[in-house]
Amino acid sequence: MDESKRSFLKRSIGLLGAAGLVASGAKKAAAVEPPEVPPSMKVPGAGMSEYGTPAKYESKVTRTLIRSQPGTTGSGASRTPLEALDGMMTPSGLHFERHHSGVPDIDPDKHRLLIHGMVKRPLIFTVDALMRYPMRSRIHFLECSGNSQLLYQPGPPNFTAGQTHGLVSCSEWTGVPLRLLLEEAGVDRSAPWILAEGADAAAMSRSVPMAKAMDDAILALFQNGERLRPENGYPVRLFLPGWEGNMSVKWLRRLKVVPAPIMTKDETSRYTDLQGDGKSLMFTYPMEVKSVITRPSHGMTLRGAGLHQISGIAWSGNGTIRKVEISTDGGKAWTEAALSAPVLPRALTRFRVPWQWDGSPSVLKSRATDDTGAVQPERDKVIADHGNNAIFHFNGIQAWSVAANGEVKHVYA
Amino acid sequence: MDESKRSFLKRSIGLLGAAGLVASGAKKAAAVEPPEVPPSMKVPGAGMSEYGTPAKYESKVTRTLIRSQPGTTGSGASRTPLEALDGMMTPSGLHFERHHSGVPDIDPDKHRLLIHGMVKRPLIFTVDALMRYPMRSRIHFLECSGNSQLLYQPGPPNFTAGQTHGLVSCSEWTGVPLRLLLEEAGVDRSAPWILAEGADAAAMSRSVPMAKAMDDAILALFQNGERLRPENGYPVRLFLPGWEGNMSVKWLRRLKVVPAPIMTKDETSRYTDLQGDGKSLMFTYPMEVKSVITRPSHGMTLRGAGLHQISGIAWSGNGTIRKVEISTDGGKAWTEAALSAPVLPRALTRFRVPWQWDGSPSVLKSRATDDTGAVQPERDKVIADHGNNAIFHFNGIQAWSVAANGEVKHVYA
Repeated sequence: MDESKRSFLKRSIGLLGAAGLVASGAKKAAAVEPPEVPPSMKVPGAGMSEYGTPAKYESKVTRTLIRSQPGTTGSGASRTPLEALDGMMTPSGLHFERHHSGVPDIDPDKHRLLIHGMVKRPLIFTVDALMRYPMRSRIHFLECSGNSQLLYQPGPPNFTAGQTHGLVSCSEWTGVPLRLLLEEAGVDRSAPWILAEGADAAAMSRSVPMAKAMDDAILALFQNGERLRPENGYPVRLFLPGWEGNMSVKWLRRLKVVPAPIMTKDETSRYTDLQGDGKSLMFTYPMEVKSVITRPSHGMTLRGAGLHQISGIAWSGNGTIRKVEISTDGGKAWTEAALSAPVLPRALTRFRVPWQWDGSPSVLKSRATDDTGAVQPERDKVIADHGNNAIFHFNGIQAWSVAANGEVKHVYA
Repeated sequence: MDESKRSFLKRSIGLLGAAGLVASGAKKAAAVEPPEVPPSMKVPGAGMSEYGTPAKYESKVTRTLIRSQPGTTGSGASRTPLEALDGMMTPSGLHFERHHSGVPDIDPDKHRLLIHGMVKRPLIFTVDALMRYPMRSRIHFLECSGNSQLLYQPGPPNFTAGQTHGLVSCSEWTGVPLRLLLEEAGVDRSAPWILAEGADAAAMSRSVPMAKAMDDAILALFQNGERLRPENGYPVRLFLPGWEGNMSVKWLRRLKVVPAPIMTKDETSRYTDLQGDGKSLMFTYPMEVKSVITRPSHGMTLRGAGLHQISGIAWSGNGTIRKVEISTDGGKAWTEAALSAPVLPRALTRFRVPWQWDGSPSVLKSRATDDTGAVQPERDKVIADHGNNAIFHFNGIQAWSVAANGEVKHVYA
């Protein structure tokens, strides 16, 4: 349901109508002095800038850094502060990071991309050459397959929404359809796989099925209008819409068309999904349907009963979000939230519903459904299906408790 | 026509098919050495950062600053470097700026918004109170009415696409529908106007028709996911989709419901449109259908004949872009370009068409049509209709010449 198709207020949870809005924090002007002319109107403001930055009052809105693992350099992840954001887009400065050996410094004039293997004409591209090809732009989420892995733990993690779920971000990606370059190289269409290799010190490498490469894969050169950020693969990355983030190999230097998956370290010792029975799943590419409420969320305190807005993000690597349902009683009753247009395939979708909180303890949940009919499962079901040893592909329902004093905490419920 | 509905290559200008692509700059690997293992793979890269910035190799991609006018402080404009961007979104750091007395420094905890005048309940809002209201998000362009004013000049300006057309940008804006707050204040629905006043030293003020305020106006709190940037109205701005930028009053501190337009300095001495007959048009709100080719554009040099991509942006304050046509012969023959999805109302729309340049002198033009049927006019018609004294609302067709040596220049053609 698109929010534009109906009043925000007609479908809400416990909302008492417009009269209820006055309780939300606005003060009647009659009861207060009209605002003084503020200092900002008495002196000229600052001048213009060549490249802008956020307000100094927002300096705490940053990525959460998880420092390098011992004995490694530049390996780790930083998370998007989802609880401080709204809308569907993620500013590039706050896009999550996941590096296996840090962010390489690559001079675009010296960078080369090789396409070889089972092709008629092996080709080497400069970045300037890539810039001349036909491009396409799409708004897509990118999610690390390890996002929300803390929820496999027996007890609820004492972290914010961004710290648990912030390995997902959403950008407009612009680049050259990979299909065009493969066709130019004279790809052997019977070849089933392509090895993609990054120019970082980890030589991050994954085997990509040919069908995906010929479908919607792009070589991304731009992110949110400007050239890729260094931590997102400057000057060029592979981008595979909807698939686990590590497949979208950054700092791309080599594509080799091959007859079988290469079984790189990154798809054998890493990025396989250990199950409860001790076996591991391999090549689990699409990120499953998922959602999280970002406001209110862990670490916030509601300032009194009355009108609040429940807002969050939903996404599916398999398609388009069709429905997000919200519960304020831990999952007994559900209300459909409004989805903010445009609702796009494999993109973050913002959902919202007004909530008239009566001040009693509540448990908030969101449950997403995509257009394949897949429904986000309860955490218990994820654990039952996959066990507690897994790290990747957690997509269970997230619960936040709201105490009578307004404190919001992560709970398993 | 959506680019997803057909091959990029089937409809192009002068394109010879896939074989033509090899001429585009890729080199056969057989003719060159395979790429050396680059230095970036031999040492660990840089660590993570709390808030990312562009690659150092992109340091020249900045807003073009036009410094303050003599005797003023902070008045002027900076322009988005359109020729360096791709896609539909503008990164917030490169969003154009237009200030009448600089960028005020506003502590959000101290900021207040007053709604008064013809209302039953005058109200004062803190920013925290606004954050509790139902919100909506929309991707919209914002264009200064003075954008492209240099094209009213008798001779073609010797400037880049960004310098002539860069007073337009596109962001996702998230905020509270103004209608909700007006209803809460008990607005007199017979009142036809609202005065909006900013908290900057210019007290930037415009009269807004009630119909727009009750339709799609929002009080924007977020831009591209994060809180508004200071130069875009932090902590809260009015946003009026499709209308000239100065109406979307930044740093909003006051909305007064009034029986008639206030005739502020900003709508009498400024932001009226002087016509050829010496009369001026007032209250010309929507920005008309328009487009510009951003690549290739003035100041670039094509590196030889062969495959190039013609790419640009189109927009209309009156609706949704339906069609963009491209000419490479100065307007004799036209070919329809592909529009990049999603094509949204009152948003920038990226268009593209591959172009097989034969190396002979060419003149490139783009012509946009919106869903009201309005067609972007030739420059001659704009001048004939409005004269050369105008400053605002120039939406004529932009022409770039391509010389045999590849140099691209602004021409009137």
